[in-house]
Amino acid sequence: MSGSSRILNEALRAKVTSAEHAAGLIASGGTVGMSGFTGSGYPKAVPLALAARMERERAAGNPFRLKVWTGASTGPELDGALARADGIELRLPYNSDPVAREKINAGKMDYLDMHLSQVAPMAWQGFLGPLDTALVEVTGIRADGSLIPSSSVGNNKTWLDRADKVILEVNRWQNPALEGMHDIYYGTALPPNRVPIPLVRPDDRIGEPCFRCDPDRIVAIVETDTPDRNAPFTPPDETALAIAGHLLEFFRHEVASGRLPASLLPLQSGVGNVANAVLTGLIDGPFENLTAYTEVIQDGMLDLLASGRLRMASATAFSLSPDAAERVNADMARFRDRMILRPQEISNHPELIRRLGCLAMNGLIEADIYGNVNSTHVMGSRIQNGIGGSGDFARNAYVSIFMTPSTAKGGKISAIVPFASHVDHIAQDVQILVTEQGLADLRGLSPKHRARLIIERCAHPDYRGALADYFERAQRGSYGLQTPMLPAEALSWHQRFIETGSMLM
Amino acid sequence: MSGSSRILNEALRAKVTSAEHAAGLIASGGTVGMSGFTGSGYPKAVPLALAARMERERAAGNPFRLKVWTGASTGPELDGALARADGIELRLPYNSDPVAREKINAGKMDYLDMHLSQVAPMAWQGFLGPLDTALVEVTGIRADGSLIPSSSVGNNKTWLDRADKVILEVNRWQNPALEGMHDIYYGTALPPNRVPIPLVRPDDRIGEPCFRCDPDRIVAIVETDTPDRNAPFTPPDETALAIAGHLLEFFRHEVASGRLPASLLPLQSGVGNVANAVLTGLIDGPFENLTAYTEVIQDGMLDLLASGRLRMASATAFSLSPDAAERVNADMARFRDRMILRPQEISNHPELIRRLGCLAMNGLIEADIYGNVNSTHVMGSRIQNGIGGSGDFARNAYVSIFMTPSTAKGGKISAIVPFASHVDHIAQDVQILVTEQGLADLRGLSPKHRARLIIERCAHPDYRGALADYFERAQRGSYGLQTPMLPAEALSWHQRFIETGSMLM
Repeated sequence: MSGSSRILNEALRAKVTSAEHAAGLIASGGTVGMSGFTGSGYPKAVPLALAARMERERAAGNPFRLKVWTGASTGPELDGALARADGIELRLPYNSDPVAREKINAGKMDYLDMHLSQVAPMAWQGFLGPLDTALVEVTGIRADGSLIPSSSVGNNKTWLDRADKVILEVNRWQNPALEGMHDIYYGTALPPNRVPIPLVRPDDRIGEPCFRCDPDRIVAIVETDTPDRNAPFTPPDETALAIAGHLLEFFRHEVASGRLPASLLPLQSGVGNVANAVLTGLIDGPFENLTAYTEVIQDGMLDLLASGRLRMASATAFSLSPDAAERVNADMARFRDRMILRPQEISNHPELIRRLGCLAMNGLIEADIYGNVNSTHVMGSRIQNGIGGSGDFARNAYVSIFMTPSTAKGGKISAIVPFASHVDHIAQDVQILVTEQGLADLRGLSPKHRARLIIERCAHPDYRGALADYFERAQRGSYGLQTPMLPAEALSWHQRFIETGSMLM
Repeated sequence: MSGSSRILNEALRAKVTSAEHAAGLIASGGTVGMSGFTGSGYPKAVPLALAARMERERAAGNPFRLKVWTGASTGPELDGALARADGIELRLPYNSDPVAREKINAGKMDYLDMHLSQVAPMAWQGFLGPLDTALVEVTGIRADGSLIPSSSVGNNKTWLDRADKVILEVNRWQNPALEGMHDIYYGTALPPNRVPIPLVRPDDRIGEPCFRCDPDRIVAIVETDTPDRNAPFTPPDETALAIAGHLLEFFRHEVASGRLPASLLPLQSGVGNVANAVLTGLIDGPFENLTAYTEVIQDGMLDLLASGRLRMASATAFSLSPDAAERVNADMARFRDRMILRPQEISNHPELIRRLGCLAMNGLIEADIYGNVNSTHVMGSRIQNGIGGSGDFARNAYVSIFMTPSTAKGGKISAIVPFASHVDHIAQDVQILVTEQGLADLRGLSPKHRARLIIERCAHPDYRGALADYFERAQRGSYGLQTPMLPAEALSWHQRFIETGSMLM
């Protein structure tokens, strides 16, 4: 192991140890800041060893639990294994692991759903409590002791700066050509000493390619070679293609009206089927010299880069299918200079999103007739994943777009409801709403005009009549008529689904 | 009139005319961008003449209506008179006039409730439609034709830049010593040409003291001498003093814990009784060298300035009682150099609020047990005023504080409810909740922990038991347990109030 070419600093090479030994350095009850964002760049060996230890301790009657902070979602070796071992006391700021989700919604795991841009600042502000350990995957360690970041940056800079002790996983599976792709900004500070962030274009580099790390705080280094999670990619279905079609038509119209430049503005795009369809659709569209300033680089964005339409992409992480990951790894030299990975407080910073004028495209669980959006809670109480960066982007975007199929669960759930059972994005932050049925341009419209348009353009025909009926009756029976509602009926669709398994009457 | 010393530019002096003539230059169906923010600096003569014209035209069977954009709230001569004449087709972005409020809630006037920081950018982006006329109060016109701003800045720069034609009111009541107090930033642009805003301290000046204005577009100038609205000030009651007490104790604790500097961070404070009590309380507190980066300078802030505790205040407008307005006017030379009025897109800019690390203190109508805040809609449908700048500040603040008496309407409304009937601020943006009952520090807490603390610390004893009972039952009967709720019961308190006039069972 000591001959590994990935650890070029000799003093640090002496700290190479086993995952089991490293896991033994973490005390129960503490807080661990882990790497990982959308299934990439998360530690893979130490969490498994930790989970095994948790199972043993639990069997011996000594519950072993940790507070786990990350960038965003990770992989089954981390969230899945630790949740299965009942080893997570508190999880923040985002989760998409099914085992952890189940524990959270059963009330067995505390979960703090945060704006992704705010995690690092709040850690520095001392609002989240002390950080005992940083557990961070890196691609390699340079001779000077600086750390080559992995396939996600997330909050790693902050974890490495703030933790009492540092455990590193050096993952040989990660492509060594990642070196030089990252831009780690070291200019953040606490007020009153904050200064403007000097980024004015998505391709500006304002930092350093590697993490600084005090070698004295590094207590263990574990070598691994496990791939990132990399969920396989489902090609867009008809619904996704229809949504993408409406949105591309909207972009064409905005350019023709002079409200958007011909090369659009920096794209932000969530992950998933619909987002991929939009990005893929841009390959055949009329737009050239596109840029992206976003959270993740997913398959569609890679295709767009490969096509030449997308000039460059700035993000904090990859989120690729195994196929796409292979393509990137095989062709890293070609892709590398057109991609930048940054800390998530920079990729998602309100200052930068507003300055750049991002076109924000995010998914949702449900929107009400006024365009208040629920991104997180099924039936208002059961969390799906988390708000992620959608709030960072939606409020500060040049145009804030939300898109969704108009129904879910085979038509039994309407994505358009009389009243949102949970609100993540208030109507002011939702300008364009798109389903496969159509697109509602809500800019400049007061609530009742928004409702008419959303019902007409976005609702599924199976639900359109009931929504229009509710809205009409609300206009007659509401306490006030700015945003008409009937409190006794507003959440009845959710209640019906809970009772009958369908929102349909 | 032509001898007025307030119009030093000769060519422009020739454009002085009557309010009636100026009102005649505005065509029905158009859009007028007016000055005015929290009852200060709004035009006072031309709107009254417009209202008279509207009444005449309506009587003659020719409805005359306008779209009216402002900074925020204005005075009875503007919103009251135009609303009474049924002359407002659409109003944005904020209103507190009772006549206009009544028309809005009766469904007779369209109202678009906007984040105050976003009005100017969206006007430039072309999302709100064309702007026909700017109608702006100024303190005077300099020999070079530049305009000395009045007691509010609001969106005036944008209206003057964008409107086809400009009508000015030169108000002799405004103190000529206002000249030099303002800082009008001319560095905004549309993306991709936006750059960092070079403000790093609340007292930085980054612009010019006056508005630029193309004289060829000025079609009329009207001279006036009417005072600003200036609502009288009610001294803090016991409830407000109790809220202020909890908050000052919190600040002391944060400084002692090293989470806030001894001179705190720039204060943002809403208007009203509670806000004034907090500001007045700071006079006797241990904090020195305070600063404010906020929307309005109200009575309490003036007292704090006079006491020497507040070093300087940056805002976009005054909002003073007649007494306080007299004090400022009498002592302008002393106050002027410690106050800066800026465009509202700068006073409320997310980039600057996050950089400076403001301590945001805002009021609310209701909060639910998880800390989702409704700032705008009584019983979910009847709008009170508007979201104003609360969203700009709450999401980007260093600490986001919301405060309210725990009940309203003599105890018949609880400010803490099972489920917010409208959401303006999502739980992520609400860190501290204060009522006269106590303070809930919600930082770092997941939803169920937030609920326990809010019910215990903030709810009124008359409602505490019912809230705890709902929360307990929700934890047994909820679809998911991340944020337990009972959809069939969640809005029942609002329904009960609508039916019986009280939320009490």
